[in-house]
Amino acid sequence: MVDIQRSPLAPCKFPFVPQISGLNLTTAAADIWYPNRDDLLLAEFELGASVAGVFTRSGTVAAPVVWSREVTDNGYARALLVNSGNANAFTGAQGMYDVRVCATAVSDLCGCKQSEVLIASTGVIGERLPVERITRALGTEDRLGEVSTFQSASWQEAALAIATTDTYPKGSVAETQIDGTPIKIAGIAKGSGMIAPNMATMLAFVFTDAKIGSGILKSLLRAGVSRSFNCITVDSDTSTNDTLLLVANGQAGNRPPDSPRDKSLRLFRRSLDKVLTDLAIQVVRDGEGARKLMTIQVGGASSPSAAHKAAMAIANSPLVKTAIAGEDANWGRVIMAVGKSGVRLDQRKLSVMIGGVEIAKNGEKVLYYDDSMLIEHLQGPEIFIEVNLGIGRGKAKVWTCDLTHDYIRINAEYRT
Amino acid sequence: MVDIQRSPLAPCKFPFVPQISGLNLTTAAADIWYPNRDDLLLAEFELGASVAGVFTRSGTVAAPVVWSREVTDNGYARALLVNSGNANAFTGAQGMYDVRVCATAVSDLCGCKQSEVLIASTGVIGERLPVERITRALGTEDRLGEVSTFQSASWQEAALAIATTDTYPKGSVAETQIDGTPIKIAGIAKGSGMIAPNMATMLAFVFTDAKIGSGILKSLLRAGVSRSFNCITVDSDTSTNDTLLLVANGQAGNRPPDSPRDKSLRLFRRSLDKVLTDLAIQVVRDGEGARKLMTIQVGGASSPSAAHKAAMAIANSPLVKTAIAGEDANWGRVIMAVGKSGVRLDQRKLSVMIGGVEIAKNGEKVLYYDDSMLIEHLQGPEIFIEVNLGIGRGKAKVWTCDLTHDYIRINAEYRT
Repeated sequence: MVDIQRSPLAPCKFPFVPQISGLNLTTAAADIWYPNRDDLLLAEFELGASVAGVFTRSGTVAAPVVWSREVTDNGYARALLVNSGNANAFTGAQGMYDVRVCATAVSDLCGCKQSEVLIASTGVIGERLPVERITRALGTEDRLGEVSTFQSASWQEAALAIATTDTYPKGSVAETQIDGTPIKIAGIAKGSGMIAPNMATMLAFVFTDAKIGSGILKSLLRAGVSRSFNCITVDSDTSTNDTLLLVANGQAGNRPPDSPRDKSLRLFRRSLDKVLTDLAIQVVRDGEGARKLMTIQVGGASSPSAAHKAAMAIANSPLVKTAIAGEDANWGRVIMAVGKSGVRLDQRKLSVMIGGVEIAKNGEKVLYYDDSMLIEHLQGPEIFIEVNLGIGRGKAKVWTCDLTHDYIRINAEYRT
Repeated sequence: MVDIQRSPLAPCKFPFVPQISGLNLTTAAADIWYPNRDDLLLAEFELGASVAGVFTRSGTVAAPVVWSREVTDNGYARALLVNSGNANAFTGAQGMYDVRVCATAVSDLCGCKQSEVLIASTGVIGERLPVERITRALGTEDRLGEVSTFQSASWQEAALAIATTDTYPKGSVAETQIDGTPIKIAGIAKGSGMIAPNMATMLAFVFTDAKIGSGILKSLLRAGVSRSFNCITVDSDTSTNDTLLLVANGQAGNRPPDSPRDKSLRLFRRSLDKVLTDLAIQVVRDGEGARKLMTIQVGGASSPSAAHKAAMAIANSPLVKTAIAGEDANWGRVIMAVGKSGVRLDQRKLSVMIGGVEIAKNGEKVLYYDDSMLIEHLQGPEIFIEVNLGIGRGKAKVWTCDLTHDYIRINAEYRT
């Protein structure tokens, strides 16, 4: 972890993750940006795997995103290489060349094609990726008998290797079944600045031993993301490198589903959503400088997307986030944020609850409410804001964190 | 001014404003929120005036905005009453009633119709406007011979009366001509949080002695706003009360123009734009916690609106703003912000200059640039960021300020 003093929201405990057969995790230290820590993760899928991905919608995407988008389009991969410390973003033709060098090195090591190697990077923008240090760590630099320095890693060590300003490693796990066959799902993620809609993750990798074709995998992932990673924001800034990959190596031996709507996927879908949401919330909890996790629910909107838009306007409002940091029940700023969101409104029907206490109703402040209950809620680590627009049935839930002095300190000091 | 310790960017000196005949400014202290200071401004247009207004596009507009929108639709007014300390926003039917009470009191005092009284409010959201204190100050509460406590005020005193968290009064003045007749333009404004596009001002009032019909006034104002107040942002939050009014009382006696494109308006238009831009930049300079004024210019975009969108994405990015607060040449965050803006891009053609130093060109970091010049620029109080998208001829310029610890402190402490 980075040497920045922070007092985060209580860190999430890293879960116990069972072994997924056919999946090897190894890490190494290549001295890319942070000295004396592992900054490379190599996940090898020994017998190959179906893969699906969701990526940043930024217009200035990083080279590894361009590369991995192609691999997931093919739907099949044998390995994933992740580096932290350098984003390989805005690095022009050189950046694409450097990705190819990394993919070649991994393909040499794993005995697969370049086009079967997924690559993800996170860290400083605009600096050349130190590929020599990476290929040296892989032991493939000059093919003169160098030995890979990668060592077998636990899931927690893997999560630590991909971290940047995160204050704790993030992992989630679920055990489920398809047609009676036991299935494992395990994921790791890293945050924690530049988190906003349009694939908010930074990096998250979810692995399962289920046997699922890549087309179906894609649609399961897309649906899951719309309820998890696309519902979080730390600071409204969208990264150049956001990458979420879902890898299914089929080792569980279940009967493969026929379509995304196959009934056999009911439990799997629920477990996948749980893992994605769990990882997404862990990213927000560890948002830069975060001291409070905020859950924002909007109901009564003209449509689910209007509800989402209003909820995100609240979640991204610096004035709302600073009020929560100050433990101030400043519901006027919530009203302001809903107002600026641009969704259809009738303010005479608007109501606002904080921590279950109704403060505003039908376009006016409620005359008497339990101030002590409200104050107690605001002093806690988890804040609930509920807004009802009162005009329809659209609803949405999003998560964010408060905006604190530490966010400023971290971001005025850390070179992205 | 509020008792919040701040070290703002060097405050702008309040200009000398010449007398505008037929316009009376008076202020009073009604103890609305801040004790021991004037919090009411009454501007009386003795012989009536053409008026035009631009207002917040918030879906939760305050009652005075609803009221003044109607008055400006009529195009004629005799007076303007402004209070600070209470926004009269999200106050339901009571709020509309309270505006009417204020308008009635002013109409009694000035001997005009209610519908000729403009009203503007700024301050806390969701609290009832203390109308009794306002009508008492106007000396019209029970019509039993009470005396108005309003006293003749200078322009600077008027600007102080409408302020909330501003650290200095804001004014601007220009002398120009229409068809050879000398014309005066004078304006005051207040910020300084909740400043974002869609009419970013909070409150600004511009007065002129020119004779211009309200239809023409409207189109001059709308054009001017698109190059001034709609090009500033402090924190991306749009207020419920933003109001910009342009009042022309015709006392200069010029030949009235026939249309907004009348050649006689060439100099007037330029001077009006100058006053609007000057006031808008003063609002940003005094943004909450601001220590640096940032000017962001985007060129080479596919259209002027794409350029504006990209510039605003940079101006609203918390990561860009904290980097500038930290005097860090973190151009990667500028690239990120342009990327997330959603405008048409070809990153291979993108270039970035900070303080005139080209740092990135054609999609890559420039190999050698003058770091010392860059550092010197970043340590100064005014920061220039220029981005060229390299794909078209659209350009735009916007202004913002850095995001500092003081923004957090002010907004975690001040109840809006």
